[in-house]
Amino acid sequence: MAADHVNLPPAQHVKVLDGQGWVGLLESMGSEVTIVNAARVSLGRCREAMDDQDVKLLKYLLEHRHTSPFEHVVFTFSVHCPLFVRSQWQRHRTWSYNEISRRYTEVDLEFYVPPQVREQAASNRQASIEPLHVDQAAARQLIDAHNRAGVGVYTRLLEMGVCREQARGVLPQNLLTTFWATVDLHNLISFLALRDSADAQWEIRQYAVAIKALILPQFPSVAQALGW
Amino acid sequence: MAADHVNLPPAQHVKVLDGQGWVGLLESMGSEVTIVNAARVSLGRCREAMDDQDVKLLKYLLEHRHTSPFEHVVFTFSVHCPLFVRSQWQRHRTWSYNEISRRYTEVDLEFYVPPQVREQAASNRQASIEPLHVDQAAARQLIDAHNRAGVGVYTRLLEMGVCREQARGVLPQNLLTTFWATVDLHNLISFLALRDSADAQWEIRQYAVAIKALILPQFPSVAQALGW
Amino acid sequence: MAADHVNLPPAQHVKVLDGQGWVGLLESMGSEVTIVNAARVSLGRCREAMDDQDVKLLKYLLEHRHTSPFEHVVFTFSVHCPLFVRSQWQRHRTWSYNEISRRYTEVDLEFYVPPQVREQAASNRQASIEPLHVDQAAARQLIDAHNRAGVGVYTRLLEMGVCREQARGVLPQNLLTTFWATVDLHNLISFLALRDSADAQWEIRQYAVAIKALILPQFPSVAQALGW
Amino acid sequence: MAADHVNLPPAQHVKVLDGQGWVGLLESMGSEVTIVNAARVSLGRCREAMDDQDVKLLKYLLEHRHTSPFEHVVFTFSVHCPLFVRSQWQRHRTWSYNEISRRYTEVDLEFYVPPQVREQAASNRQASIEPLHVDQAAARQLIDAHNRAGVGVYTRLLEMGVCREQARGVLPQNLLTTFWATVDLHNLISFLALRDSADAQWEIRQYAVAIKALILPQFPSVAQALGW
Repeated sequence: MAADHVNLPPAQHVKVLDGQGWVGLLESMGSEVTIVNAARVSLGRCREAMDDQDVKLLKYLLEHRHTSPFEHVVFTFSVHCPLFVRSQWQRHRTWSYNEISRRYTEVDLEFYVPPQVREQAASNRQASIEPLHVDQAAARQLIDAHNRAGVGVYTRLLEMGVCREQARGVLPQNLLTTFWATVDLHNLISFLALRDSADAQWEIRQYAVAIKALILPQFPSVAQALGW
Repeated sequence: MAADHVNLPPAQHVKVLDGQGWVGLLESMGSEVTIVNAARVSLGRCREAMDDQDVKLLKYLLEHRHTSPFEHVVFTFSVHCPLFVRSQWQRHRTWSYNEISRRYTEVDLEFYVPPQVREQAASNRQASIEPLHVDQAAARQLIDAHNRAGVGVYTRLLEMGVCREQARGVLPQNLLTTFWATVDLHNLISFLALRDSADAQWEIRQYAVAIKALILPQFPSVAQALGW
Repeated sequence: MAADHVNLPPAQHVKVLDGQGWVGLLESMGSEVTIVNAARVSLGRCREAMDDQDVKLLKYLLEHRHTSPFEHVVFTFSVHCPLFVRSQWQRHRTWSYNEISRRYTEVDLEFYVPPQVREQAASNRQASIEPLHVDQAAARQLIDAHNRAGVGVYTRLLEMGVCREQARGVLPQNLLTTFWATVDLHNLISFLALRDSADAQWEIRQYAVAIKALILPQFPSVAQALGW
Repeated sequence: MAADHVNLPPAQHVKVLDGQGWVGLLESMGSEVTIVNAARVSLGRCREAMDDQDVKLLKYLLEHRHTSPFEHVVFTFSVHCPLFVRSQWQRHRTWSYNEISRRYTEVDLEFYVPPQVREQAASNRQASIEPLHVDQAAARQLIDAHNRAGVGVYTRLLEMGVCREQARGVLPQNLLTTFWATVDLHNLISFLALRDSADAQWEIRQYAVAIKALILPQFPSVAQALGW
């Protein structure tokens, strides 16, 4: 169930980014039995529960990219994350999204400060590396101070009568946003393969890891087959 | 829940085409409260149950084509219909499908015979009209006999050793097929607007009418707003 | 350019299925330079022509499934194929389709007769095998005769006044249809991987092979990287 | 053709937002003849050029939402716009996008300053109104100063060794970005209906107006039928 306020996590959620963000599971439809039954539609058969044969079938489907049976399992998540994570996420066009709009509300501004800043890697493929030489406290303080300065300018603009939709332009991409996101299991698996990987930015990767933790109990054979 | 055999309807279903076909509701996710809550994400709010304000909001969303909140409500149907209806249905590309395959099974062949044949209209926009002059019994008998003749040739080809995937080419488009179909409420509403209309072929229209009957009890305000 | 009549192939086409079907290239947009430039947008750069570095980049993109740059290259094909091939094809939901409608026209009925019938394989994964024991002439004659019988019944139903949209139900899935199909290169590559494979039915595989032949001259590095 | 540098507009472009942004037409495929021919595929006919009958057909298709023939006309645009416009744009999931990445490059930072700030409207449906009481110069100066302050903090973070992908978090949503965007005419028409409307934010509306200007010369009958 959804919480009273969209910036509060639902009952079933995982905290990420040192507790600054979270991802929650609002609703889901279907199970591993749904997947094998959908696959067996092609043969004109279906069944009530999973046995060892079904687990084998599930693994066969995953290995051979028979993806359509996974589209009858659907999830709705709520996500609380920085804007730059949101932009990476919403490049995935097979999800359905509804997001808090800063055209319509100016309340509850929160901003991300990295729990640990990372160092620039020489190669773009590995965009960042573990920090050896960065002064953590100084960098975090600089980011935090600038986040706060943004709120100051934003508030000043609103007081001057400037509309929210223009004033928000001064708010940094560390601004936290909240959105609902619905996706089927096939497209979720593709998302997780891309976003829980060494190429992905550390911040979005934490959300991918959290989603795996949320759905793993109901999809143990899928998780095992994919090596989660 | 799904029936044991894919050609049998699930518990919750509506018969169509004089009992030759059916559409069943296998699973669903979300409710009218889901829709208004998804819409209110933009304002940073949500709630537990519907009141009169929410019904107004729902109607506002439908009238002004704010379609994204309807994408968090999802249905899985199973459909038993003639191939020519299936082809019209699967032109809708926002659904997920799994269908019985005549490459893999030759059992349970059934064929559609129109309960009433219709007359050709002069205009393509109105492709058929109520029959005045067609000999119903003769036309239905001709169709039925040819459906049966197709099975005869098909069986003969299988006996000769010809593979199912080629032999099926002789089976007529009156062949009944079964498929699972998952769709969100926004795209279902678009489907129903196109397929429960005077432009649609009578046969697929019966399925659209049946779907409305299946989901109407859980979506009374949507149904009322859309004039179902 | 399109031919005068939709059942005639356009200038640039490849015949398939012993000349009974064809696939033509009506239009295309973009080139291999488009792909590397789209990839380089992320770095803020682009260029006019391909060099060796670009060919390496192209291969890197394909190997690492960086698929988005391939979506700015688009093709429109026209396809003439049996209905059962059409149904397999149109399961691919990222294409745009316009197809001849047997609700609207009854002219130009043609039917597929397999140039060689294949034998049923024991396993569904390999649905058919090379024929050893099938009487080719007898099987082909049986199919051809039944295709013709379908036209006879169809014509008789039209003469009785039955509408085309119902009468077509007696026509077999060997009926040839024609459609336009537009797709981007990323989704075309996915289609070709699935349909030019040992799992695919021989008939649709011939179309996949023909499409490779049509686009290969303009996409030599893509073809080489994918082992076409 | 594309310009040498992705932040420079291509030859065919329209400036927007007082010259701070632009939208360019990189490539296109198809014409009004393509649309009517695609529609006529259903009848088994096509032709070489438009006449008055074709213009009527085009209008009929638009009025009756026969959208599929418009999907064989495709455009690639390049867009230079503030991040908050980009986020609104990329909610449209039927487009293909490639965007400059601030994970990979720190060059060419530019920021939007509204040519005219607007006043907050009382109603969310009309998010902003013409300004009566806002001190334009003061508001613009405040925004400009904060944009510049963001660059200062960003540069300082890079100097400290912080990776680009984290440092960018301090940059405001007024940051200008550049992306390539490919879309078919059906989905473009939907985009333009939503974004060139009174409900849309003024900034994205300017891009929608510019796109109409770019494509209107090649699609005069479409433009006329839609009242552009």
